[in-house]
Amino acid sequence: MIFTKTKTVRFSHCDPAGIVFYPRYAELCNEIVEDWFREALAVDFHHLHDKLRLGVPAVRLEVEFLRPSTYGDSLQFALRVREIGNASMVLEVIARCGDEERVRIRLKVVMMSLDTRGAVRIDDGWRRKFAAFLEE
Amino acid sequence: MIFTKTKTVRFSHCDPAGIVFYPRYAELCNEIVEDWFREALAVDFHHLHDKLRLGVPAVRLEVEFLRPSTYGDSLQFALRVREIGNASMVLEVIARCGDEERVRIRLKVVMMSLDTRGAVRIDDGWRRKFAAFLEE
Amino acid sequence: MIFTKTKTVRFSHCDPAGIVFYPRYAELCNEIVEDWFREALAVDFHHLHDKLRLGVPAVRLEVEFLRPSTYGDSLQFALRVREIGNASMVLEVIARCGDEERVRIRLKVVMMSLDTRGAVRIDDGWRRKFAAFLEE
Amino acid sequence: MIFTKTKTVRFSHCDPAGIVFYPRYAELCNEIVEDWFREALAVDFHHLHDKLRLGVPAVRLEVEFLRPSTYGDSLQFALRVREIGNASMVLEVIARCGDEERVRIRLKVVMMSLDTRGAVRIDDGWRRKFAAFLEE
Repeated sequence: MIFTKTKTVRFSHCDPAGIVFYPRYAELCNEIVEDWFREALAVDFHHLHDKLRLGVPAVRLEVEFLRPSTYGDSLQFALRVREIGNASMVLEVIARCGDEERVRIRLKVVMMSLDTRGAVRIDDGWRRKFAAFLEE
Repeated sequence: MIFTKTKTVRFSHCDPAGIVFYPRYAELCNEIVEDWFREALAVDFHHLHDKLRLGVPAVRLEVEFLRPSTYGDSLQFALRVREIGNASMVLEVIARCGDEERVRIRLKVVMMSLDTRGAVRIDDGWRRKFAAFLEE
Repeated sequence: MIFTKTKTVRFSHCDPAGIVFYPRYAELCNEIVEDWFREALAVDFHHLHDKLRLGVPAVRLEVEFLRPSTYGDSLQFALRVREIGNASMVLEVIARCGDEERVRIRLKVVMMSLDTRGAVRIDDGWRRKFAAFLEE
Repeated sequence: MIFTKTKTVRFSHCDPAGIVFYPRYAELCNEIVEDWFREALAVDFHHLHDKLRLGVPAVRLEVEFLRPSTYGDSLQFALRVREIGNASMVLEVIARCGDEERVRIRLKVVMMSLDTRGAVRIDDGWRRKFAAFLEE
């Protein structure tokens, strides 16, 4: 499975050159991960943090800015899981406008206990959920 | 030479876990590059864009989040030039709090003409300026 | 008519207290105005700026923060026009979560020519469009 | 006393029109309040929140945008206390560039216990500190 989501580029995302200011893509990426948890994995971040006492902080972010986007552009984001480790996983988020690839992101997150502040093993329940988005 | 700059982590940078929300590091990185141009290279972004008709958009960003930071932390940023290509260069920005490395960023930017929207060769004048921050 | 739009409060909107950081409401307000132009007035901001050479900068913003919101909350925004002057208008944007009013915003914007950088009279075509959202 | 602080307008503050995107002024205002607490009142936000278990959330914000600012502008912010109530106070923050007034903000904040989530009386120690910035 691939998690897809369409987002409109906002005026507030754009810089004086009229194109998306690159840090805004990191924010959009975080929104996509938040949407994926809520809509595809059926766990919203509030539940994850407050009830399950888990967080998924970023440990590594790689972004390739392929072509500029401007406000009003409708970007289709596609999220895939690329690797699942013991306590971490690598997500890939690609944003396209029509057929044109605009941005390609790899985000490594770790599953963390909010109580111990340490990494925790991705258990079988989570692993199954994440693995459904793992491309073979 | 290394360009260094101290910045305080702001309340506005932090998320509900009380630590810097990772996209804010991309903003801080952009601030450091802006400061470097103005303070070390003696060309402010306004002059660069409006008078010289040049921009330095990001084409690749890599960030390693090594340890969390919270508001009130005083981060010392160090910028070095790692590679200078024909029209692009790779910058490295490391943020430390005391002796502790918090974030390590590699940012590839390209020199672009704002008139043609195409990449332009980094000329000898710029090359000399950038090369002063290139670590051997 | 009232323009309504539902938006989910994002993790990125929230501060270390876990509630929406108040400047994010100003961003959300701007998104609502952007949505209103595109969806209700059938003019997207890109067209407005680039083709019509008009902008609607804020000249006055008043926000009452009535109750806190947190990420995951679904906020229903309602936009009304409160006054239409010669070159300016006052918009009211109210955000509710269920029956609870969370934020109440009054935003005065002016219609500006991007060519002259001066205010321009709201012409009859625009006036009719805006007046449809004016509460008697 | 007046608390003053100079800040440079950043590229990241500006919108496609090349001027400060108005929600960024709310962020800058929050930074000024944060600076005031740390530098003038000798209590940083981390200490305020974690040790004293107090917060100062905004309950009302009014901003007049008088003239546009662009990146590279050096803005001098001046903060004064305008009213001190039982549990709340009104701050005024004015931003000037040279002799030109750019933005005028009134921010009402309330002193809140982070434990009870309710308003608390501004005690005599705080009242003395705040009153030093109250214009007669």
